[in-house]
Amino acid sequence: MMSRVKNLEADAQIGMVRKVLDHGAVMLVDYMGGDESIVRAARVSYGAGTKTLQEDKALIKYLLRHSHTTPFEMVETTFYLKMPIFVMRQIVRHRTANMNEMSLRYSIELDVHYVPELDAIQGQSSSNKQGREEKGWTKEAKEGIQTEMRDHAEASYALYQKLIQQGVAREIARFVLPVTFYTECYWKMDLWNMLHFLALRMDAHAQFETREFANAMAEVVKKVVPVAFEAFEEYIKDGMRLSKKEETAVATLLRGATQEDACSAAGLTLYKPDGTPLITGEGPEFLQKLAAIREKEARRG
Amino acid sequence: MMSRVKNLEADAQIGMVRKVLDHGAVMLVDYMGGDESIVRAARVSYGAGTKTLQEDKALIKYLLRHSHTTPFEMVETTFYLKMPIFVMRQIVRHRTANMNEMSLRYSIELDVHYVPELDAIQGQSSSNKQGREEKGWTKEAKEGIQTEMRDHAEASYALYQKLIQQGVAREIARFVLPVTFYTECYWKMDLWNMLHFLALRMDAHAQFETREFANAMAEVVKKVVPVAFEAFEEYIKDGMRLSKKEETAVATLLRGATQEDACSAAGLTLYKPDGTPLITGEGPEFLQKLAAIREKEARRG
Amino acid sequence: MMSRVKNLEADAQIGMVRKVLDHGAVMLVDYMGGDESIVRAARVSYGAGTKTLQEDKALIKYLLRHSHTTPFEMVETTFYLKMPIFVMRQIVRHRTANMNEMSLRYSIELDVHYVPELDAIQGQSSSNKQGREEKGWTKEAKEGIQTEMRDHAEASYALYQKLIQQGVAREIARFVLPVTFYTECYWKMDLWNMLHFLALRMDAHAQFETREFANAMAEVVKKVVPVAFEAFEEYIKDGMRLSKKEETAVATLLRGATQEDACSAAGLTLYKPDGTPLITGEGPEFLQKLAAIREKEARRG
Amino acid sequence: MMSRVKNLEADAQIGMVRKVLDHGAVMLVDYMGGDESIVRAARVSYGAGTKTLQEDKALIKYLLRHSHTTPFEMVETTFYLKMPIFVMRQIVRHRTANMNEMSLRYSIELDVHYVPELDAIQGQSSSNKQGREEKGWTKEAKEGIQTEMRDHAEASYALYQKLIQQGVAREIARFVLPVTFYTECYWKMDLWNMLHFLALRMDAHAQFETREFANAMAEVVKKVVPVAFEAFEEYIKDGMRLSKKEETAVATLLRGATQEDACSAAGLTLYKPDGTPLITGEGPEFLQKLAAIREKEARRG
Repeated sequence: MMSRVKNLEADAQIGMVRKVLDHGAVMLVDYMGGDESIVRAARVSYGAGTKTLQEDKALIKYLLRHSHTTPFEMVETTFYLKMPIFVMRQIVRHRTANMNEMSLRYSIELDVHYVPELDAIQGQSSSNKQGREEKGWTKEAKEGIQTEMRDHAEASYALYQKLIQQGVAREIARFVLPVTFYTECYWKMDLWNMLHFLALRMDAHAQFETREFANAMAEVVKKVVPVAFEAFEEYIKDGMRLSKKEETAVATLLRGATQEDACSAAGLTLYKPDGTPLITGEGPEFLQKLAAIREKEARRG
Repeated sequence: MMSRVKNLEADAQIGMVRKVLDHGAVMLVDYMGGDESIVRAARVSYGAGTKTLQEDKALIKYLLRHSHTTPFEMVETTFYLKMPIFVMRQIVRHRTANMNEMSLRYSIELDVHYVPELDAIQGQSSSNKQGREEKGWTKEAKEGIQTEMRDHAEASYALYQKLIQQGVAREIARFVLPVTFYTECYWKMDLWNMLHFLALRMDAHAQFETREFANAMAEVVKKVVPVAFEAFEEYIKDGMRLSKKEETAVATLLRGATQEDACSAAGLTLYKPDGTPLITGEGPEFLQKLAAIREKEARRG
Repeated sequence: MMSRVKNLEADAQIGMVRKVLDHGAVMLVDYMGGDESIVRAARVSYGAGTKTLQEDKALIKYLLRHSHTTPFEMVETTFYLKMPIFVMRQIVRHRTANMNEMSLRYSIELDVHYVPELDAIQGQSSSNKQGREEKGWTKEAKEGIQTEMRDHAEASYALYQKLIQQGVAREIARFVLPVTFYTECYWKMDLWNMLHFLALRMDAHAQFETREFANAMAEVVKKVVPVAFEAFEEYIKDGMRLSKKEETAVATLLRGATQEDACSAAGLTLYKPDGTPLITGEGPEFLQKLAAIREKEARRG
Repeated sequence: MMSRVKNLEADAQIGMVRKVLDHGAVMLVDYMGGDESIVRAARVSYGAGTKTLQEDKALIKYLLRHSHTTPFEMVETTFYLKMPIFVMRQIVRHRTANMNEMSLRYSIELDVHYVPELDAIQGQSSSNKQGREEKGWTKEAKEGIQTEMRDHAEASYALYQKLIQQGVAREIARFVLPVTFYTECYWKMDLWNMLHFLALRMDAHAQFETREFANAMAEVVKKVVPVAFEAFEEYIKDGMRLSKKEETAVATLLRGATQEDACSAAGLTLYKPDGTPLITGEGPEFLQKLAAIREKEARRG
């Protein structure tokens, strides 16, 4: 007899608001399925009967490790999200979601906008074109920036309101609102695409503000599919991909070669023609990967 | 406070097997959401608060009538299906579904195949290249066809089993199985795509065997979203599309013109250059539509 | 022998910039296929050989009229678009597109923003929550609004530049930019989804600014698939959908009944319980449809 | 000035039939874009101008290595495929494709079915539930199997033809056709999804017959996007994924530990509780990966 498996921990998440940034929110609205749905969908392919809990866990891990993605698509989560427009603009790019967003053609915007905390106000990263980094600015300097951003948002909203009061159509008046204003939506995704989304947006290279939303969603997903989430962390989030050249370099290293020789043998260039070290490209990326796995081992050991 | 709305009628469908054809099955495995999810998703766009039940019904109808599709995507249903391979091959073409199908590379096929009932054994349609029609064959003639089909399926399965027993790989042995053999799958879809699927596959032009599965799924969907399903029947399934020329013809008819004159004025051709009537094309299709709406009115009146 | 069909008119569109709004642009980057690809894909289903040009046109019209959508998916167009962020936010919702958009995490925004022309500055529509309508404001009043919007955009950009010059990360500085600033992207879609997009965004209910972009794309699509585009206009864009009740009402009208009687017989309500006329809902919508088809006929006759 | 880049090698593939299996075919019908489209789409994000050919190659490799997938979606290929139904049933599962397949509801099937060559007739794999392996059967034994499969297919077709001649509807008569019969389709996909498809279906675990089709398509794709294809081979097809535990094990190995110790330290189990070696699971899979990278290095060295 088939019936729904109760997941009390996940049920408790429904309707529970997680605060994100200054005025944002992440809340589970509904979900379908769980670890057991993944197992059930996978077993239809194998024709196998019910199994022990231990075998079920092993099966989920096997599926995720070998990119058998379709059983993970059987689980769905629907979130309510309240986030700045610039975050929404990144999230909407994940086209496999179903979304219903507040429309400023219909609605009058609430007076809510995002102002970064002092810690989040940073300079342009020198190594990463799309990142930020701490520049050691004084508290006063950061407060100055923060105040200018807040004042601008408030002035923008005041103008918006004035236009609305003059009778200007909402779909026109909203032109003046900066992308730091909050919007809200319902957002539904299947688990496979959710894990892919989380891998990209929980990553250190994702924009800080977007990462905060991804992290909050991850907390919820973990309750809905505890086993699959653990496998996701082990194999995807904290895993690593090696190219063919990198595989060769690892094999050469394992035979006792130095990093320089191993890279050279594998065709992973570390130096410019003039002998100065490269800072980007496959060679330096490989050294970073080596450093990362050594660090992981050190932390574990 | 947000929580799941209980839908006892839909819950009762979970795990309930509906028999389809001789050995097929349709069973609801799980679902997410309901009429209230559609309303909630739509309201985020309007910023409106909770409303009366009557207004909710009107909103769902309005959304469907005006093809505001995204709120309907918030609802999901997962089915277990057991159907002949030739039906599966049509259903898999609906690419918006998530599916896990039994694989004959892993599994040994059960000895289950579809044999049409006498009523379903018909001749090639003379008007419709892809259809069948009753030709008035004798019971004996139909039984002869039925027997030949059954014998062939049984012989095919016997050969399959023999190959398996000889040790031939399952992925090779299955080459001999006809498309009338049953396969099974889990099949998940959001409501908007489900309604689109049902509109196509419940249609009189869909293959009889596929229609039987669509009809069984429709019975379940109706329990999950009673209001949306009613709107689907009113506006999509039993609705009709008029082309620009057909609109003109209707307007001319309303001014009292004859069918011939109205078609002629609208550019809907009814005759070949030699004066004989056309049997296909826009003109005849318009006359069929007129007949259909007259028939609907007569049945109602 | 299979080879590409030359379409010189479409080729001439590649790289040709169409100006839209004050600083926007629509340009065809590349395309694949044409009317002949639709025919070829459809014929694989029928197993039919090559046919006359006249039959090909009839086949395309037949496919579109009967929603046989897959042959239309064989054609692709890639556009370069430059549009305000608020337009992009509507366009990105069409999830079947492939898109690469300028990222303000990497790039410094150019000083380009949209300021509506006087004609486009209108009041909130009284009948349509999401629309605008002419309110008869004086030229001076409109100029006042226009000036405020332009000044605000310029001040926003000045602040953005100041933050950039202070060394604030680009991904933070951009928070202050209003949604009226321009962004750019490459945008690729198959023809079926493009026609669906055009039907929604060329519609009178679409926001004026978005409609301008849809109209410009339609001009290009018409060159790529002249026959399919003509069919799209006839059957979809200028076509109409009737619900089951509306079909009944039309049939009753054709038997000579009055509008009131026909609506009443079909269950299309025109009055509130207190006898005052409804202004929204199925009944009034049906009267609007009748008026529309009568107007189309009058223009044609 | 934007214009299409000529790719004469790819153009020469259009209409060129590649024979696959006994009666199958792969043929490029059309394509859009090339390596330069990937670069162009990526550059819109960076706002950068045109660059050297060398930088373009590096950019494509960078994008693929870092899973920046959207620029690869700008390229499309359309194939004509003729393949057994059981291969089609695997290929259709890649839902991101656009497809038009021959319908046996409309068409009468040609008398073409697949019979495996003697080399392809193998036994059930003992290590892999879904694979085949050479069992050392005699030529006569294999010929016996081959003859039985061919005779069955011919008898099935004879029955099909008899039913058609009796006037049975095509959509019914086809029930008797085994999945080894050929079907044909047009099949269109964007490059990113194509590379994903190729990674899965060129893999040693894919069914031999499906792999033959993937290999033939890969030959064509290589001509359309030579640089992207090279990057695909280096980073995806011949690359490898390490889990967190495997990273730790590699780091431990690099510090000079034995395989057993490294696996043990990382939590990669190699033995059952009773001390006998495991043959499946994470531990054995890691040893296989190590063997694979050592073999790659040996072949290179």
